[in-house]
Amino acid sequence: MRLRMEKFIREQQKEIVSALEMVDGMRFREDTWTRPNGGGGLSCVLQEGNVFEKAGVNISVVYGTLPKPAIAKMRENHKSVQAEYDNLDFYALGLSLVLHPRNPMAPTVHLNYRYFETMRPDGTPQTWWFGGGSDLTPSYLFDEDAVHFHKTLKEACDKHDKDYYPRFKKWCDEYFSNKHRGESRGIGGIFFDDLDDTVADSENTFSFIQDCLKSFLPSYIPIIERRKDMPFTEKEKEWQQVRRGRYVEFNLVHDRGTSFGLNVPGSRVESILMSLPLTASWRYMYEPEPRSREQRLVDVLREPKEWV
Amino acid sequence: MRLRMEKFIREQQKEIVSALEMVDGMRFREDTWTRPNGGGGLSCVLQEGNVFEKAGVNISVVYGTLPKPAIAKMRENHKSVQAEYDNLDFYALGLSLVLHPRNPMAPTVHLNYRYFETMRPDGTPQTWWFGGGSDLTPSYLFDEDAVHFHKTLKEACDKHDKDYYPRFKKWCDEYFSNKHRGESRGIGGIFFDDLDDTVADSENTFSFIQDCLKSFLPSYIPIIERRKDMPFTEKEKEWQQVRRGRYVEFNLVHDRGTSFGLNVPGSRVESILMSLPLTASWRYMYEPEPRSREQRLVDVLREPKEWV
Repeated sequence: MRLRMEKFIREQQKEIVSALEMVDGMRFREDTWTRPNGGGGLSCVLQEGNVFEKAGVNISVVYGTLPKPAIAKMRENHKSVQAEYDNLDFYALGLSLVLHPRNPMAPTVHLNYRYFETMRPDGTPQTWWFGGGSDLTPSYLFDEDAVHFHKTLKEACDKHDKDYYPRFKKWCDEYFSNKHRGESRGIGGIFFDDLDDTVADSENTFSFIQDCLKSFLPSYIPIIERRKDMPFTEKEKEWQQVRRGRYVEFNLVHDRGTSFGLNVPGSRVESILMSLPLTASWRYMYEPEPRSREQRLVDVLREPKEWV
Repeated sequence: MRLRMEKFIREQQKEIVSALEMVDGMRFREDTWTRPNGGGGLSCVLQEGNVFEKAGVNISVVYGTLPKPAIAKMRENHKSVQAEYDNLDFYALGLSLVLHPRNPMAPTVHLNYRYFETMRPDGTPQTWWFGGGSDLTPSYLFDEDAVHFHKTLKEACDKHDKDYYPRFKKWCDEYFSNKHRGESRGIGGIFFDDLDDTVADSENTFSFIQDCLKSFLPSYIPIIERRKDMPFTEKEKEWQQVRRGRYVEFNLVHDRGTSFGLNVPGSRVESILMSLPLTASWRYMYEPEPRSREQRLVDVLREPKEWV
């Protein structure tokens, strides 16, 4: 499974990067890197492009040994990780991307799909799971974009299990929440942390992950094409910058992946923080006008909607 | 002590705000606020001033009841908090300020002094402590500024205990560290978390806190006066924005006060995040030129210096 998943995400990275280069007209910079404690990755970043202010598509394949405290921590979210061992070997790989367009009418998008395995000291597999999801973060809300994005994800889910979309949509709304602000980061998508053998066998889950990841370009390209050249004002750019500030708040304060990454010795900080926008702003007591388009977004972020 | 400390920080807030208004030429906006669960504060903020991009001087006086898990958490850093109670009443007050100047040659400065008390269920005092400090974060390093800032703090410390400055300077370097980057947030100052009766009696400590706080204007005003009108380039402004990004990283990822605040129900998010700069930037793989002024700063942040 490891090798098949790795092959799949490498192909997808290539395909996504070339599709985004077509949209932007500029090329991504590619950096391969190795992790001193085991593994490495390939980071593709486009900065100050024509369409994207910052876009990162990253693959990482890392492995090593989890000491007891890390095992305990992991068990909080993954009950199938056994606690009886002093240490467990692990193997983790995944693709993640974050795209921050220049135009405030064009939404930021995030995606991550990952596979995790733990092994007993004698090398036998202990447990495995897939996790991931994809979500959209507009500064200005276009209902047709939200509907299109969610519909594409729902179709990928429905092919496998009719319960997946409603369950993972809800999980996404709950996870991507700036709890300290009482608002969601964006208008959601899907998110799931532990699809393991209590849900389905690994073949079926891998096939589901493949469909999710393949649905990314169809879910986002039509949206960016519609929005990338729309006219906008100074004031609208300012609002985008304030929303980018909220994006930074979520990623640095609440995101488990980011805080896990930053606390892992030998991790590549530049690849983890690739998710942060090129620019962001914090204005004291910045409140949208009543009944404005900005206020409409905030209303939806305070009470997530069903889009399909 | 509560009332005397409260009176003192309110006077200091007024004095500092008017001194900064003299420097900037613009007035601070003042917001009084109340905390639903007990207490309140006064936030003074100047945004998009002539000299300061964003400046906040905040007082808060809050009280309430700590449940058992919060007591356990507090005991991690304050051993004098007794664990045997199901809940403890607390009373906390403090002044904090962060100033982000426009000019990249002028350093950001942060200060916080606070007093904390816990009471047993029958209302008798259980323990108390003072905490705080002040530290400087330049984007461009001027040795004379660093020396002046540290010297002023050292003089305030030396009046009380010759061991204070070296101890609190070291504590500051260790605390204000972006561990994930292997660099300090800035060039330090002093920091201490728990001056309680194992160190000195409350009268002497209060007198020390007063001297520290009163040393703030003399420590910073000469620096901002020297730097606020210096010429600078686009490129230097860009470097400042990257350094501001690191400031945001420290405050959102590592700062105990911020994460405590954001997790306290009913806290005022706008006052807590007042510390964030108006604008910040994250550039992928941004590396200063070898032997540049930018590189010199990074070298010092990687290996904190003795300034006095």
